[in-house]
Amino acid sequence: MDFELSQDQRAIQEMARSFAAEELAPHAAAWDEHHVFPVETLRKAAGLGFAGIYVREDVGGTGLGRLDAAILFEELAAGCTSTAAFISIHNMVAWMIDTFGDEEQRRRWLPDLCAMQRLASYCLTEPGAGSDAASLRTTARPDGAGAYVLDGSKAFISGGGASDLYVVMCRTGGEGPGGISTVVVENGTEGLSFGKQEKKMGWHSQPTAVVSFADCRVPVANRLGQEGDGFKIAMRALDGGRINIAACSLGAARACLERTIAYAKERRQFGRAIAEFQNTQFQLADMATELEAARLMTWCAAAKLDAGAPDATVACAMAKRFATDVCFQIVDRALQLHGGYGYIADYGIERYLRDARVHRILEGTNEIMRVIIARRLLAD
Amino acid sequence: MDFELSQDQRAIQEMARSFAAEELAPHAAAWDEHHVFPVETLRKAAGLGFAGIYVREDVGGTGLGRLDAAILFEELAAGCTSTAAFISIHNMVAWMIDTFGDEEQRRRWLPDLCAMQRLASYCLTEPGAGSDAASLRTTARPDGAGAYVLDGSKAFISGGGASDLYVVMCRTGGEGPGGISTVVVENGTEGLSFGKQEKKMGWHSQPTAVVSFADCRVPVANRLGQEGDGFKIAMRALDGGRINIAACSLGAARACLERTIAYAKERRQFGRAIAEFQNTQFQLADMATELEAARLMTWCAAAKLDAGAPDATVACAMAKRFATDVCFQIVDRALQLHGGYGYIADYGIERYLRDARVHRILEGTNEIMRVIIARRLLAD
Amino acid sequence: MDFELSQDQRAIQEMARSFAAEELAPHAAAWDEHHVFPVETLRKAAGLGFAGIYVREDVGGTGLGRLDAAILFEELAAGCTSTAAFISIHNMVAWMIDTFGDEEQRRRWLPDLCAMQRLASYCLTEPGAGSDAASLRTTARPDGAGAYVLDGSKAFISGGGASDLYVVMCRTGGEGPGGISTVVVENGTEGLSFGKQEKKMGWHSQPTAVVSFADCRVPVANRLGQEGDGFKIAMRALDGGRINIAACSLGAARACLERTIAYAKERRQFGRAIAEFQNTQFQLADMATELEAARLMTWCAAAKLDAGAPDATVACAMAKRFATDVCFQIVDRALQLHGGYGYIADYGIERYLRDARVHRILEGTNEIMRVIIARRLLAD
Amino acid sequence: MDFELSQDQRAIQEMARSFAAEELAPHAAAWDEHHVFPVETLRKAAGLGFAGIYVREDVGGTGLGRLDAAILFEELAAGCTSTAAFISIHNMVAWMIDTFGDEEQRRRWLPDLCAMQRLASYCLTEPGAGSDAASLRTTARPDGAGAYVLDGSKAFISGGGASDLYVVMCRTGGEGPGGISTVVVENGTEGLSFGKQEKKMGWHSQPTAVVSFADCRVPVANRLGQEGDGFKIAMRALDGGRINIAACSLGAARACLERTIAYAKERRQFGRAIAEFQNTQFQLADMATELEAARLMTWCAAAKLDAGAPDATVACAMAKRFATDVCFQIVDRALQLHGGYGYIADYGIERYLRDARVHRILEGTNEIMRVIIARRLLAD
Repeated sequence: MDFELSQDQRAIQEMARSFAAEELAPHAAAWDEHHVFPVETLRKAAGLGFAGIYVREDVGGTGLGRLDAAILFEELAAGCTSTAAFISIHNMVAWMIDTFGDEEQRRRWLPDLCAMQRLASYCLTEPGAGSDAASLRTTARPDGAGAYVLDGSKAFISGGGASDLYVVMCRTGGEGPGGISTVVVENGTEGLSFGKQEKKMGWHSQPTAVVSFADCRVPVANRLGQEGDGFKIAMRALDGGRINIAACSLGAARACLERTIAYAKERRQFGRAIAEFQNTQFQLADMATELEAARLMTWCAAAKLDAGAPDATVACAMAKRFATDVCFQIVDRALQLHGGYGYIADYGIERYLRDARVHRILEGTNEIMRVIIARRLLAD
Repeated sequence: MDFELSQDQRAIQEMARSFAAEELAPHAAAWDEHHVFPVETLRKAAGLGFAGIYVREDVGGTGLGRLDAAILFEELAAGCTSTAAFISIHNMVAWMIDTFGDEEQRRRWLPDLCAMQRLASYCLTEPGAGSDAASLRTTARPDGAGAYVLDGSKAFISGGGASDLYVVMCRTGGEGPGGISTVVVENGTEGLSFGKQEKKMGWHSQPTAVVSFADCRVPVANRLGQEGDGFKIAMRALDGGRINIAACSLGAARACLERTIAYAKERRQFGRAIAEFQNTQFQLADMATELEAARLMTWCAAAKLDAGAPDATVACAMAKRFATDVCFQIVDRALQLHGGYGYIADYGIERYLRDARVHRILEGTNEIMRVIIARRLLAD
Repeated sequence: MDFELSQDQRAIQEMARSFAAEELAPHAAAWDEHHVFPVETLRKAAGLGFAGIYVREDVGGTGLGRLDAAILFEELAAGCTSTAAFISIHNMVAWMIDTFGDEEQRRRWLPDLCAMQRLASYCLTEPGAGSDAASLRTTARPDGAGAYVLDGSKAFISGGGASDLYVVMCRTGGEGPGGISTVVVENGTEGLSFGKQEKKMGWHSQPTAVVSFADCRVPVANRLGQEGDGFKIAMRALDGGRINIAACSLGAARACLERTIAYAKERRQFGRAIAEFQNTQFQLADMATELEAARLMTWCAAAKLDAGAPDATVACAMAKRFATDVCFQIVDRALQLHGGYGYIADYGIERYLRDARVHRILEGTNEIMRVIIARRLLAD
Repeated sequence: MDFELSQDQRAIQEMARSFAAEELAPHAAAWDEHHVFPVETLRKAAGLGFAGIYVREDVGGTGLGRLDAAILFEELAAGCTSTAAFISIHNMVAWMIDTFGDEEQRRRWLPDLCAMQRLASYCLTEPGAGSDAASLRTTARPDGAGAYVLDGSKAFISGGGASDLYVVMCRTGGEGPGGISTVVVENGTEGLSFGKQEKKMGWHSQPTAVVSFADCRVPVANRLGQEGDGFKIAMRALDGGRINIAACSLGAARACLERTIAYAKERRQFGRAIAEFQNTQFQLADMATELEAARLMTWCAAAKLDAGAPDATVACAMAKRFATDVCFQIVDRALQLHGGYGYIADYGIERYLRDARVHRILEGTNEIMRVIIARRLLAD
């Protein structure tokens, strides 16, 4: 057992930290306020290899692992949680194509995705099928002429309207998970349309919209894997996605903890720095302790996924549940310790809180995480 | 002992509930999104007696008590938490003038305040004196010609820039609480200026700004009470203010609980309404239980304040601490139970969360509430 | 609305407090250590009217209400939680006979019960029917000669083996709650036997055992109410029982809070009383606040039960859930603040913790409380 | 980074698990009930190398590391938490002699300690110096004839009265930590005496007593390290001790979780296994998740201590704080899920709760852990 980062991992961490400090943090408040989707910045990130982190190198990927990615996303999220989270989703989709796509598909899409010349969205959730993803109703009917005809709607799609590729889980067969396939729909395809941009509590630097398909014709050659593989593909993607979301929560929490420590040393009340008050000290101690626990859970799950461990899915669910809950609490405490300054935008804490709140919900709600974990506990 | 509302109180509750449903709730989302300060709506509220709730009737007040007010603010806050909270602050200031002002002052200001023809702000907090209010540094120096000359700044002032009257705690004497007086500054007075509008996490339907005084000359006749009474006046005002803020949290939590119950009955996943899942049921049960506890604490503190009980200040501190913390948790759970829909603006839950968050901070942080409570416990 | 105790209630409180201080507290540690069931002390309590608190006066009862009882049990439990809880169960049974018994039954049993010349146990739970009480399997078959023949077993019976009367819920009809009747079995009846005394975490001053019936013949005249009324009778008894258990938790928590305040003022570390440390202060403040909330919930539920309010059952469930959970946490914090002294028997805190722990389980687990509350929320 | 146990570590784990299952678990209830100190069993444990786990092999030690020990103590504690904790303290003392003793001291004491032919106690805490250990008042005055004369008292000493060696922190110099030395006192020394056995909430399989010194003469050759090194020696010992106590909490929590899973599958209510209820599932999921987080924290701290990492002390403090708090909550939830069966001794859960409760207090209270952590956070 070894809890130390390798030299390579420290280098990745350092590079991501610098990028976050220089390219994300200074703009995060403005992107949040004005709902800016910073595509140029995303491409700079891609230039450092952050857009195809665990995509193979022959198509422009960076060829790293899940643990590397977790380290990296913590750093990016410390700069701008919302933007980091978008990058993580794009990476998840790139990984799906790299892993389940054939060579032609890989070569067609991945070079652009790895450069973020094209952006990708993951389309699983539907208005009526949130936690119950397997009951999705978007259909993909073969037209007998080499195409699927898609009909249906996907909800809460990050990148919806702005992305170039939509990787869509849709029903090519009967009820249940076995009837689902995964199809790539390119933006511009006839019959593909987008709802209004959702007004959200946070995550303002990425667009979110309903993605709809009406008689939308997509070549059968755009299907990833076999017919009926879609649910399995979607779930495998989420294993890694959950680690990344957990890592994004770590970044938000760590940034808030660091700012709170600095603030507590400077801010004076009752004749001394608030860092000298025992309540401040105990709060900080608990925040740091829980952050460390969340990080270990996240890294351990990532290592298991890298190793193909049989309990990797449960470890990912645990990490996602634990880290996103605990880190939200850390951010909330940071806000409280800032007093009124925590509530106003200038100090940034409230933005981290708004951004991190959705992590407890997406890529499987934390309630679904508990279902996954309990199923395993009771099966053993 | 009697835990039932009187018939009059039920009538107040009903009237406030109707007003909230008709005049606040339908607009709350737009006010939040566009940062609208709804002055016309405030005047309608005043028309029902909500602007001078516990001001005496001879100057246009409604002549009710603290418990009546707590009932009322829960209802208003269920409609729009931010707007209700502003009304509560205006009421606090009106009460200060009614209680500590002389007859001339009461007649000069209260009729307009009770009609909300003029709005009032409470100015205690300073950039460097938040929790440590007694160390405030805004000075009011007598000019020997019947005026005070004010210099200094007040931070996080609700209504800052929009209000007509600023009731300012300022230093007319030496260090500590005993050197503080309360002075009413009318908008338009030379030397009074306002900072930029603060960008906040919530409370978007009310303006917040720094209020500054530079060589700002105010008649000595604008002082409430005696020189040196200011800190005591400010603290007595906060007793009631804390109940109102607690009540505003109750309203936010109750609205979220009611919406979540309705949502849980309608929303279906895995073939049944999510209300049928035991986790949903247990969450709702705990939310309702804790809301009830928070309401009892708030009402009990209000009754003690009405009765002039010796432990009223501690009861107010307990109610504020407990209700604002617990209700925030209720709103947070409501958001979680709504899943993705909780995070988007359309369902309103996220707005309640953003609005209610500041209640744990203002009118004395919940940490200061603990200081007040502990002091009493250890003194006995 | 009125949150003040009446003069009579203050007198009850004072009397119970004196009794607890003189007759319970000095012996509680020894009763706990040596598993003493203090029957003589129980009879002294009965001498003050504590054994038939809300039994009518014509049979020796005290004729008080539920709120009076809640006040009283808090005081007794502050002296010895385990003994107070036994008295509360005895009272619950006496109330069942007073309310559902006919005149002959009332006169036969209640004078002795009100004097605690005879003790009573409540027999609902079975080894296989805990939370699912309605599925109980103890049968009472009419023998055609004026008697029921009871067969079956009741688990976790307080007073089992020591009590004189066992009020038994048993099946006289078909499946479900409608087939259940309530029968009084006197100790000494042939076919009535007792299991070994259970070894428990706490509640050492009261015996607990399985109560078994094998061909146990009981006159039909011992049935309370009509055939089929048993489940309803059992549940109505628990409404009040839950308030009393909540009140017993209040007593345990209050005693621990008071001892902790005294300890914190005396105990010195790092050169000053631990009461001067902010963590101690904040812990105490939260303990006192939550205790107050728990008390209000309990008193409010008791008042509703006294008033026959339609939501009394839900209020009792909320009070029981909230008070027993919150007060356990208060006791646990008190133990922590005592450090090593909290863990040893001399200071008594650990006994309160062991005694109070079972309150979260019995008279309906807190999970069942949530079921009751949620059912109501979702029915409205 | 690598989160997998090595083959050797799996072997240690397996051996300890077998020993716990065969030699500890079957007797734990009886030892608890009858306050048996199982010395023969301790010697069997020593026979497997568990008494000098990280003592060097030349004196009979096992030569393993801290991580190995953490793995091992989790297993032992799953069998009998109290006995495992005693073994951990004995190991801590053996390590002090191995690390700070000279060769003569090592050869004199360690072979017997590693065989548990002699047992050792750690004597730091005093009645008036608990958390504030550095202010201890036990004195060791040189008599000018090669001996120290000890006077004073040590409180809450595990093994007090039964152990053969007492490693005593005592004052040989001035105030503060720099005046403290470490001296080994052998049982039988004149002037060494023991108070009554403490009655405790749990930890019944190990004796606890005050250890007193009155004119107690000990050869200067019994001093470990230099004069003035005592506080540093004591603190370094606690780093490892805290990991072991954390590991003992892991064992208690894991045993309870495993039993609860088994119980939930068997216990039926409302027509189905309670494992089928969503609340049961979610509780189990959270228990397992938090147990995993606690284990990672403990193992990570142990690895840091093995590596001599500069942040090892903080990591140990975090692990101890987190694991002992979280594991207590797991045990408490296990008790609740067992309902009435959790409260009675037969199922064992309540014993784990009583045993694990003290872990939040000893070897530095969890409040002191927060002080240690905060000091580091604010120093950086």
